[in-house]
Amino acid sequence: MAHLNDHYFKLAAGYLFPEIARRVREYAANHPKKAERIIRCGIGDVTEPLPAAVIKALHKAVDEMAVRESFRGYGPEQGYPFLREAISQHDYQSHGIAISAEEIFVSDGSKCDTGNILDILGPGNRIGVADPVYPVYVDTNVMAGNTGPASLGGSYEGLIYLPCVAQNGFVPEPPPGQPLDVVYLCFPNNPTGATATRHQLETWVEYAIRNETLLLFDAAYEAFIQTPGVPHSIYEIPGAERCSIEFRSFSKNGGFTGLRCAYSVVPRELTMRDGAGEARPVHPLWLRRSTTKFNGVSYPVQRAAEALYSPEGMSQVGELVKFYMENAAILRAALSQSGLSVFGGIDAPYLWVHGPSNLSSWEIFDRILNEVQVVVTPGSGFGAAGEGYFRVSAFNSRQNVEEAGCRLAGMSW
Amino acid sequence: MAHLNDHYFKLAAGYLFPEIARRVREYAANHPKKAERIIRCGIGDVTEPLPAAVIKALHKAVDEMAVRESFRGYGPEQGYPFLREAISQHDYQSHGIAISAEEIFVSDGSKCDTGNILDILGPGNRIGVADPVYPVYVDTNVMAGNTGPASLGGSYEGLIYLPCVAQNGFVPEPPPGQPLDVVYLCFPNNPTGATATRHQLETWVEYAIRNETLLLFDAAYEAFIQTPGVPHSIYEIPGAERCSIEFRSFSKNGGFTGLRCAYSVVPRELTMRDGAGEARPVHPLWLRRSTTKFNGVSYPVQRAAEALYSPEGMSQVGELVKFYMENAAILRAALSQSGLSVFGGIDAPYLWVHGPSNLSSWEIFDRILNEVQVVVTPGSGFGAAGEGYFRVSAFNSRQNVEEAGCRLAGMSW
Repeated sequence: MAHLNDHYFKLAAGYLFPEIARRVREYAANHPKKAERIIRCGIGDVTEPLPAAVIKALHKAVDEMAVRESFRGYGPEQGYPFLREAISQHDYQSHGIAISAEEIFVSDGSKCDTGNILDILGPGNRIGVADPVYPVYVDTNVMAGNTGPASLGGSYEGLIYLPCVAQNGFVPEPPPGQPLDVVYLCFPNNPTGATATRHQLETWVEYAIRNETLLLFDAAYEAFIQTPGVPHSIYEIPGAERCSIEFRSFSKNGGFTGLRCAYSVVPRELTMRDGAGEARPVHPLWLRRSTTKFNGVSYPVQRAAEALYSPEGMSQVGELVKFYMENAAILRAALSQSGLSVFGGIDAPYLWVHGPSNLSSWEIFDRILNEVQVVVTPGSGFGAAGEGYFRVSAFNSRQNVEEAGCRLAGMSW
Repeated sequence: MAHLNDHYFKLAAGYLFPEIARRVREYAANHPKKAERIIRCGIGDVTEPLPAAVIKALHKAVDEMAVRESFRGYGPEQGYPFLREAISQHDYQSHGIAISAEEIFVSDGSKCDTGNILDILGPGNRIGVADPVYPVYVDTNVMAGNTGPASLGGSYEGLIYLPCVAQNGFVPEPPPGQPLDVVYLCFPNNPTGATATRHQLETWVEYAIRNETLLLFDAAYEAFIQTPGVPHSIYEIPGAERCSIEFRSFSKNGGFTGLRCAYSVVPRELTMRDGAGEARPVHPLWLRRSTTKFNGVSYPVQRAAEALYSPEGMSQVGELVKFYMENAAILRAALSQSGLSVFGGIDAPYLWVHGPSNLSSWEIFDRILNEVQVVVTPGSGFGAAGEGYFRVSAFNSRQNVEEAGCRLAGMSW
């Protein structure tokens, strides 16, 4: 008699985005004349076409696949050397960070990577996540059996939640008491748009080395950092190579959400304990996982990612980032004008906005939808500490952003 | 102090293909004049370029991604409806099998799918695998903690190995004794090239329904079936939708090993037990896994897979399959001529050949390499029951196949 993984039944229903969709549908049905005015600023998906350098590289790679002599079948599971070397060179070595091509694992997405990394972790780790949090970190731990059941408030027994609030600038400090074994850090942050300073990351790395904590550093939004001095990589901090895995993605800088390419970095120096308490290198386990349970990223897509590092590609990515950050500035100005407290949107494509203190996130959501037909994301959907906040995404057309900004600025709270 | 997944340390080193590579390197170094004569018939990777219909669809989809109006970001994690509907229609409904588009999950490879499916299974299942076996089924179970340590012979405690030998036509029967909870079946088989008859599959489905066994049916090579009446899908057997998950791939029929696209089928009727013993549908768990730990297949690649179902695409796939099966026939004739017992290669791109009974698989490998500079795969690398056999792949250019066939035919055993 075959048995299922019971941990899946602990998962709270995927509530947030389906509930948003339900409320928008209901509103549109009840207000047919206003339905076409609705502007969606909720979803973190890019809207602009792929850079020209990427399109060119894709066509070229497709043509190679049409000819026997240049056709490519199975590639190395961890990625082609041409891409791993470009990543190592441009994202690390040119910034003085000694990450080699062999430490780069090309994948089809950071969502996959941050979930799959749990495969190589043992049971019993004390795991810390931010609150609010990107839900994938939590749900994959539930599925892996690393938590108890969910509370009524939606938090899971066994996970340690690190509140991110205005008072700490939305950057958690290492908690007192029993040390964490694994911590997820995401900067620039989804959903708050916060970044961590060099000093804040130094504090975490020092904590991690002292306690043998594994830092899972999600830098999917690093390309949006504008402020000089804000770290783009955890490996800018000395010692981080001994305690950190970094995740990066081409989804938001190159607009690859539909093409699918990302990478993880597992330094050779990184060790963790086996069951006998012996320190073991992590790299061979992640390599074994990648070669056994994955077959590499589509060849044309790897060529497309490589093209992002060409001079034209880098310039075109710069234009895309500039475009979305101008969107963020327009939305920041508009929301500030309406008297709300606006965070993020400086070094990240997300704005994190606090509503009037007497309104819940869902009440704010409903009011914005009803009054100006703009869809935002209720902050409470990302965790208890997000209550009273909402997230606004800068990924949109300029026309939509200007119109949404105009309407949001005019609201009186 | 972060802990690793100790089960990874049970894994025997990836021995087979590295050892083949080592022996070929050594031979080439010691026999420089013969090095350029070496023909590799070991690896199961396609060699012919992508079909013209696929190339056309890729270029078109890439052009769509270059324009704001037709650009696509995140797609549905389980695949675009256009592809799921084409699969449902052409691979199932047109053959009288009631598998709907909602039961299809598009993925980036069957290797990934057959590994990831373990995520939704609980611990304690009695798991059966064929011997010889595609190593991914075994290794992913080791990594998931479903086995004990490896024996000296390479088999893992806790897995139930089902010998596939000439006497049973390389198709295992359900074993007597305590029932299996999960069984991997792969037909047409890698590595033996065997197919299962309708009656043999009926026996398995009947067993599975009676014992509530989950059948994991890998049909990655179904396109190579030539013999009328040989089942292409487990769902041709009534009742299979209540006990079976099927895996299919575009890797070998469409030549997608470098493009990456496959799919799994989880019927709505399929149930398994939860920890309380209650029967639960499996579909919602696989959907939750897919949407939480995966972000869909690259959009142009999904369009490419769709193109395989167009009239031109189907005709071009037919040509590719015909080409590789002609290769298989050439190799079959050559190996038979040399007096060896040849299996497979009729409905599958692999030949499974028994050498003289006094020689081990590795001795045969060495002799073929030394005498005629052809590289095969030693059967013992796929499991203990493969000892004395070797696998020959029909994925190669015609020129290589004809030359290798000529040399193999001339060997005297």
